[in-house]
Amino acid sequence: MPKGQPDVVPNDGLTTRQRRNRPIFAIHTGSMKGKSTAAFGMAMRAWNQGWSIGVFQFVKSAKWRVGEESALRALGEVHENTGQGGPVEWHKMGAGWSWSRKQGTEQDHAADAREGWEEIKRRLAAKQHDFYVLDEFSYPLHWGWVDTDEVVDVIRSREGRQHVVITGRNAPQALIDAADLVVEMTKVKHPMDTGQKGQRGIEW
Amino acid sequence: MPKGQPDVVPNDGLTTRQRRNRPIFAIHTGSMKGKSTAAFGMAMRAWNQGWSIGVFQFVKSAKWRVGEESALRALGEVHENTGQGGPVEWHKMGAGWSWSRKQGTEQDHAADAREGWEEIKRRLAAKQHDFYVLDEFSYPLHWGWVDTDEVVDVIRSREGRQHVVITGRNAPQALIDAADLVVEMTKVKHPMDTGQKGQRGIEW
Repeated sequence: MPKGQPDVVPNDGLTTRQRRNRPIFAIHTGSMKGKSTAAFGMAMRAWNQGWSIGVFQFVKSAKWRVGEESALRALGEVHENTGQGGPVEWHKMGAGWSWSRKQGTEQDHAADAREGWEEIKRRLAAKQHDFYVLDEFSYPLHWGWVDTDEVVDVIRSREGRQHVVITGRNAPQALIDAADLVVEMTKVKHPMDTGQKGQRGIEW
Repeated sequence: MPKGQPDVVPNDGLTTRQRRNRPIFAIHTGSMKGKSTAAFGMAMRAWNQGWSIGVFQFVKSAKWRVGEESALRALGEVHENTGQGGPVEWHKMGAGWSWSRKQGTEQDHAADAREGWEEIKRRLAAKQHDFYVLDEFSYPLHWGWVDTDEVVDVIRSREGRQHVVITGRNAPQALIDAADLVVEMTKVKHPMDTGQKGQRGIEW
């Protein structure tokens, strides 16, 4: 939490203020839990700044709801009711995205993932949100469903102050190379090692 | 987010259900950002379960407010107003704790840290909260201001379903040995490496 001084002052033609306010492209990767949780924690900060938040979960089931979804949706309602914080949109891929009405495509996750990315691309072009969480988006990239080079191009050339956080294991190297901030969550010890299963309120 | 199967089924005399619902003692350590953010993200899950949340920040300045504080306090208000989620208490050490009225002890962080721990001990004994975040508590332990062995004893022997998450660098080995879940946040890349300073909404 220290406001910390940078080690290096780059010769990039930007003022400190301009450099400070460059939008962040972050990746949370590694084998351990905390990747998404930390991204949603960052979303709380973004909310507190009054920023518009867009969460896009590249998950297979739309029924799966993590506690963070309820909490961030509740914060979105606080914003609607009182003006405090910022607006929150939360979209899950599941069997088709919430903006798409089609049914019966549960099997075609690759097409769903591409459709999700196309929508994110449109929103980035329209500068629709200030803070994007592309949750578990590393998987469609890793599996080649969505083209990593295109994602890198689009994110790198995005305009305005749009922060982007991508979570998930196996983030492609080209994505990591393009990111400003990469955190790897490393397992030191996990209760499942000693036979404890996931539990409500902790794992989801 | 997978509900995952454990690798080992231990011979500990517990049923799977009992084992599953054992309260968690977690540590978020390592040199990289995300330790506290992930803990506050977990607090969103806990809130969504209707659990009572107690956050204790072992920070030097009470003026410092992270976005997560505003967001979790807003969620606590949602609970008060609508019954959704759980209650939230947020205490900062700063120059004395909120439950203590004394002034002028800014210099005596060691005594303040011990006082904070005594209060947490009382609350654990009273089973006051379901989910505790002891934010940056690793430092008073590392510096010897609070006795690690006592903390381990108290946390290990706590009753009921009280989850505890401790964050901060340099967590003592005895604490790590006692924890169920230890995540190390490892730096892969940070914007300060290339001269970018921390910014509002991202770093705090």
